[in-house]
Amino acid sequence: MGLENPSDEYLIAPDPGRARLTRAVTGVDQTGAASEIAVVEERPLTIFLNSREIVTAMTIGDYPEYLAVGFLRNQGMLAKADVITGVEYDDDLDVVVVRTETETDYEDKLAKKTRTSGCAVGTVFGDIMEGLEGLALPHTQVRTSWLYALAAKINRTPSLYLSAGAIHGTVLCEGDRPLVYMEDVGRHNAVDKVAGWMRAEGISGADKILYTTGRLTSEMVIKTALMGIPVLASRSGFTAWGVEIARDVGLTVIGRMRGKRFICLAGEDRLIWDADLAQVAEEDPKSRRKSAQP
Amino acid sequence: MGLENPSDEYLIAPDPGRARLTRAVTGVDQTGAASEIAVVEERPLTIFLNSREIVTAMTIGDYPEYLAVGFLRNQGMLAKADVITGVEYDDDLDVVVVRTETETDYEDKLAKKTRTSGCAVGTVFGDIMEGLEGLALPHTQVRTSWLYALAAKINRTPSLYLSAGAIHGTVLCEGDRPLVYMEDVGRHNAVDKVAGWMRAEGISGADKILYTTGRLTSEMVIKTALMGIPVLASRSGFTAWGVEIARDVGLTVIGRMRGKRFICLAGEDRLIWDADLAQVAEEDPKSRRKSAQP
Repeated sequence: MGLENPSDEYLIAPDPGRARLTRAVTGVDQTGAASEIAVVEERPLTIFLNSREIVTAMTIGDYPEYLAVGFLRNQGMLAKADVITGVEYDDDLDVVVVRTETETDYEDKLAKKTRTSGCAVGTVFGDIMEGLEGLALPHTQVRTSWLYALAAKINRTPSLYLSAGAIHGTVLCEGDRPLVYMEDVGRHNAVDKVAGWMRAEGISGADKILYTTGRLTSEMVIKTALMGIPVLASRSGFTAWGVEIARDVGLTVIGRMRGKRFICLAGEDRLIWDADLAQVAEEDPKSRRKSAQP
Repeated sequence: MGLENPSDEYLIAPDPGRARLTRAVTGVDQTGAASEIAVVEERPLTIFLNSREIVTAMTIGDYPEYLAVGFLRNQGMLAKADVITGVEYDDDLDVVVVRTETETDYEDKLAKKTRTSGCAVGTVFGDIMEGLEGLALPHTQVRTSWLYALAAKINRTPSLYLSAGAIHGTVLCEGDRPLVYMEDVGRHNAVDKVAGWMRAEGISGADKILYTTGRLTSEMVIKTALMGIPVLASRSGFTAWGVEIARDVGLTVIGRMRGKRFICLAGEDRLIWDADLAQVAEEDPKSRRKSAQP
């Protein structure tokens, strides 16, 4: 893990030792011997906006308030102008209620949703594409040395991934500093938790970089753009539509980041090539996320 | 890739060379040099059951008919008894319509869905848990030598994963033979395509093994059980709820399969320990799915 603990740099770092996030489960290994491993939890969380039930998400269960607010924000059900008067989480009922001062347009959204489909991907997509019209992401520059520094720090950060696996990570970064590292079993929950934290703290995405362990799909690209973050980086790959949308909205997408290697398929004009590749270490096999295909 | 082509064993093998599944995209690499890579496609497919629009899924686009039928089956919207009179795919509209002889209970399902949530995970879950009551999976035995043989064959099979990455694979297997290998950008689409093929061909799951590149989550476990398949194996990890449900329904779940290693967290009574571990090769780094965390 390196000598210093990279978690010190974070505002929010993963807390792999935290109760209720993992469970010790006993089984048998390839030799037939009993073997105990830590397994991540997965529980339903039902999100209400005022009196209206919106969604039930499968989540690891930490930061339910951030997840709820970020989800509603990234769905376009909570506008920038909406004033949040309260967020109440009931951990017996696995319910979180987000209250706003005035009524939101969530009824229209729900109407559209139920008309178009019952599939989060389909509906999320249908709903949030609108939000992209006229979106202009700032021309924030990104040093390639930052990308390598971030990948090295994130891969060495104690996390549920390293202790239990089978989980996604999303990290909000500024320059070469990782600020907020969220993990979740639900692919987009980790991103929504970051969005919820940004909304709660009033943090702008303009000078940020979003790092994800997940693929650069259309939905990831759209969420990042809606969060006002101009740069999305991943150790994983791309989908064609994700690249197309990134180019349309002027988002920088960098994928397949592993050791010295990466490829940028959109917005390369933001990159500053300052890294000395001879000084960049190849990836430590220990930090390779090879078991992590969810 | 080995000398013989493992694809010969399959009834349906991936076709990485097939048009419209990948696209060549040019970007810049870590040195600033132009670099072209193959990227998987991702497109919406809207599924109708008779005259009713059910869902819009994001898919790579192959086997839309199998995806539609498998999705409806795994959602519990299409019962075993329902007679399918036609499946029509329109590739201009990206629409597939499944027609049944008599009306199905999809209206109730939809009503429930729109009431509970707009999230596929939440609703799928809500809907299909019912189907698990009284489900009894056969005590099919599984030789550990089969598991190693299957993993070796599947990892060496020419696939979109190997050529483009950022995609999931699900393989229906019988003994040590992989029969149907489906890939998709959508995590559960690959499983639903297998289910659709089984329904179309009238194939029983009783003597089968389902291999997935994805995590063993509650939803994967439930879908496998609903497909009547008693064994689910993955190179990826587990969630606690996935393990819990597998134990409840008597499904065998084997995860973290890599080289010689694996761990079985439910249904180990089906395993026959016949493999000579000294003869099992460690994983070929080339076939390691290390870029594949979606």
